[in-house]
Amino acid sequence: MRAQVFKEELQRYATLIEDFLNTLPWQKNVLAESMRYSLAGGGKRIRPVLALAAAEMNGGDPKKVLPSAAALELIHTYSLIHDDLPAMDDDDYRRGRLSNHKVFGEGTAILAGDALLTYAFELLSLPADVAPELQVRVLREVAEAAGPRGMVYGQVLDLEGEGTSLSLAEIERIHRHKTGAMLMVSARLGGILAGSDELRLAALTEYAGALGLAFQIKDDILDVEGESEILGKPVGSDQKRGKATYPSLLGLAGARAHLQSQVDQAKASLRLFGQRGEFLRDLADFIAERRR
Amino acid sequence: MRAQVFKEELQRYATLIEDFLNTLPWQKNVLAESMRYSLAGGGKRIRPVLALAAAEMNGGDPKKVLPSAAALELIHTYSLIHDDLPAMDDDDYRRGRLSNHKVFGEGTAILAGDALLTYAFELLSLPADVAPELQVRVLREVAEAAGPRGMVYGQVLDLEGEGTSLSLAEIERIHRHKTGAMLMVSARLGGILAGSDELRLAALTEYAGALGLAFQIKDDILDVEGESEILGKPVGSDQKRGKATYPSLLGLAGARAHLQSQVDQAKASLRLFGQRGEFLRDLADFIAERRR
Repeated sequence: MRAQVFKEELQRYATLIEDFLNTLPWQKNVLAESMRYSLAGGGKRIRPVLALAAAEMNGGDPKKVLPSAAALELIHTYSLIHDDLPAMDDDDYRRGRLSNHKVFGEGTAILAGDALLTYAFELLSLPADVAPELQVRVLREVAEAAGPRGMVYGQVLDLEGEGTSLSLAEIERIHRHKTGAMLMVSARLGGILAGSDELRLAALTEYAGALGLAFQIKDDILDVEGESEILGKPVGSDQKRGKATYPSLLGLAGARAHLQSQVDQAKASLRLFGQRGEFLRDLADFIAERRR
Repeated sequence: MRAQVFKEELQRYATLIEDFLNTLPWQKNVLAESMRYSLAGGGKRIRPVLALAAAEMNGGDPKKVLPSAAALELIHTYSLIHDDLPAMDDDDYRRGRLSNHKVFGEGTAILAGDALLTYAFELLSLPADVAPELQVRVLREVAEAAGPRGMVYGQVLDLEGEGTSLSLAEIERIHRHKTGAMLMVSARLGGILAGSDELRLAALTEYAGALGLAFQIKDDILDVEGESEILGKPVGSDQKRGKATYPSLLGLAGARAHLQSQVDQAKASLRLFGQRGEFLRDLADFIAERRR
């Protein structure tokens, strides 16, 4: 029953996001085609979902937050396109499809990433039914989270860490920058635009931070015990590359325990939302139990 | 005498910009090092100069506009780093120094570009002594000018045009997107933040558009008749690459006449600023007469 309610909520948010992304005024050229190819890659839309849910939990209308929430997905997509480039992780596939540069060439892939990042800031600054000082605050927080002290720095740390044996603290440092910062700002964005107070923003931030680590731990676990047909990518690739992961450092049981502790922490941080926190609590379980 | 006044004004603006760029809270890591390497490349700082001058012409304090004006230089620098990559124009040198990826490697160069672009939006959204709705407007206009309908699209057109014989109209279409959009928004930014009315903004936009074309025409002329030691790059490279340029389409005399007409148009557009337009009028002459 409750699982059914969660699924319907998730579907409602996802539909809002897909519809918004599809009705953007896309031009008819190879750049827009390349941007849309990667945007349509079938991700879980976790970032905009977090934003919409956080807005609704704070009494806001998720529809009003849509352009800003969608911007988060554009930034995420740009980061994946650039990460996959030969000069970076050199991945030919992403979620079971050819990566952007394998389809459109490296030059266009770099530009599609640049364009998605820039267009995200255009969406964040569109005229909106919200106090302009809140809009500026969101713009600043998103830029901080995505930039040289946030996500981009995480990718630098990741590149530098390749082939070296990282400790748990070092891995978590990478995750906190590379994915954590954007997840936290996603939840904050929804809260800020809905007029949340600082206490609730802090709770949302703590939630999203724990959710982010749970997501990464689960990713590592799936690479050990997942099924490649469901995952849409081969399993065992971390071990093959000698990559330090939660299972390689903590063992599989230890990684599962660590995952559960992050899920518990995520849920606990939502106490002050009471019943309204139900969707995000279920989302934490969903992330931990997913099979892909 | 007047030339001396112009040079002192230009120097005053340039010093403000260099000082601001140098005192940003740069971190001590390879990413920041790579960003700063290209920022320090000795460009003319035309974009922030336009912004500061436009602010002052509208009665604003150039110092208050500095973070936003500097953001324009960050965006320009990111575009140069990405343009130079092997997958794009594949240039080993930029202004007589090794290009970013030749010093730091392709992966770090891509990330340095990403970081500069994102950090620019952070600077644009820093708390400022300006109405937040004006700040949001500037953010939106800059994102539009830099994004998939502006500068990035210009680079796509440029890549597509390589090796084909372009007409004058096609060349100007590339320039309008690739450099014109950002120059226009640079002048507008200064005007908007200083509270300019729409008439003055339109005049500044027309000025910057003509200045941008003048700049490109002069670039093409210098590639024919410039001196490589002064330019800091070899001359004749356009012809060697079979690139369509103003001199190749109009002849050298035709290109010079076209340049002068853009300079005249730029100056004429500043009529309503009277005496206050003197610096920007001189800047148009400076662009047309420069030897590098």
